[in-house]
Amino acid sequence: MTKNPQKPWAATVLTLFPEAFPGALGASIIGGSEKSGIWQLETVDIRDFSVNRHRTVDSPPAGGGPGMVIKPDIAAKAIDSVAQQSRPLIYLTPRGKPLTQTRVRALSKGPGLIVFCGRFEGLDQRVIDARQMEEISIGDYVLAGGEVAAQVLIEACVRLLPGVLGDAESATEESFEDGLLEYPLYTKPREFEGRAIPEVLLSGDHGKIAKWRREEQIKMTKARRADLWAAFDKGDDHECD
Amino acid sequence: MTKNPQKPWAATVLTLFPEAFPGALGASIIGGSEKSGIWQLETVDIRDFSVNRHRTVDSPPAGGGPGMVIKPDIAAKAIDSVAQQSRPLIYLTPRGKPLTQTRVRALSKGPGLIVFCGRFEGLDQRVIDARQMEEISIGDYVLAGGEVAAQVLIEACVRLLPGVLGDAESATEESFEDGLLEYPLYTKPREFEGRAIPEVLLSGDHGKIAKWRREEQIKMTKARRADLWAAFDKGDDHECD
Repeated sequence: MTKNPQKPWAATVLTLFPEAFPGALGASIIGGSEKSGIWQLETVDIRDFSVNRHRTVDSPPAGGGPGMVIKPDIAAKAIDSVAQQSRPLIYLTPRGKPLTQTRVRALSKGPGLIVFCGRFEGLDQRVIDARQMEEISIGDYVLAGGEVAAQVLIEACVRLLPGVLGDAESATEESFEDGLLEYPLYTKPREFEGRAIPEVLLSGDHGKIAKWRREEQIKMTKARRADLWAAFDKGDDHECD
Repeated sequence: MTKNPQKPWAATVLTLFPEAFPGALGASIIGGSEKSGIWQLETVDIRDFSVNRHRTVDSPPAGGGPGMVIKPDIAAKAIDSVAQQSRPLIYLTPRGKPLTQTRVRALSKGPGLIVFCGRFEGLDQRVIDARQMEEISIGDYVLAGGEVAAQVLIEACVRLLPGVLGDAESATEESFEDGLLEYPLYTKPREFEGRAIPEVLLSGDHGKIAKWRREEQIKMTKARRADLWAAFDKGDDHECD
């Protein structure tokens, strides 16, 4: 087989709600870049792998407790129906490893991803183990299901694909790229409701501007994110964790 | 004025891409509960507040650098067009305070929220300051815009509104509710690809089951989230931060 560098980055989403897609991924530069073939989105309806006429996919948790759990055999059949093509198989769950820009960047450089969207109480642990699913959390809060989280993950990756970001956007100078929060932004008009743009930004002195922005980044990160600051200050590269 | 307890929880989203809504919020129990009047979603197109015929809303950053910045005067006009009705005005940005389930719960108990979705490099700092916007980050990664992040925030809140979650879902026993990650879930069949459901869960001994689940929560939190474990172990209530 010859390697085809033109093959688009491919996201396959396993979901009980295929109608939730493309959702926000259909709009703006993300939707436009799918239409222009830079990446592609496919959904698989987990319910198609149910074995009964009611198309049920869940049953109560072993040991009791509230809610319903997605059955491992049905989840496995849905997963096994997808041509993996060296793509990581991701399960989005609050129990997962917190998503970082480092992981996003690595995923965007690969062939794409397969995401399993949980619903109800969650997914049987045995299929997570048996299919070696990578458990990722987009943050310390709980959603109704993995669909909107999948859209977050896919959008974060897609915007880094070559050709996606236009002149108005930028993937180089931004939060997390160097382990610090971004500096504050100002634009026209020069005065807004009595508030001026900081003098230094209008000085034309690029060295001074760069210094001021760096100081603002440090000040902001210290004030708002002691965790990021500690990692940065220790000399850890936040991007290498 | 009389207080009307029946007034639905209301989300107003200021965006350059109203077509990204309702997106995933139109599907499943979240979409269904909007249709049944438990909450309501309104979008405001920021571009409607542009003052020129090209409907531009942005201009280059003062002091130079890549990308474009949303102008403060246009953003302010869009914001001021919305009846605030005691709702917090939120700006979603990686520079914000990380979203927690605690903040989600508080927001779900209030009248709703107003979210401003950033695009391009971001929003002029002066309007963030002048309108006292609450800066929130949904995680340590960068998106193309605030739209999908707004959907995350809204979905997290809406699922906690009375009447939204059905029998198959649950808002009581889950990750972050007690500062620990959730225990692993199992359901039928009893054996899946040679993997059995842990014996204890089939024992019918509720005390033993509760103890096992708690141990699993602790084991999982220690292994995966030293940060959450440290807060829990110190006796900090993660939910009170």
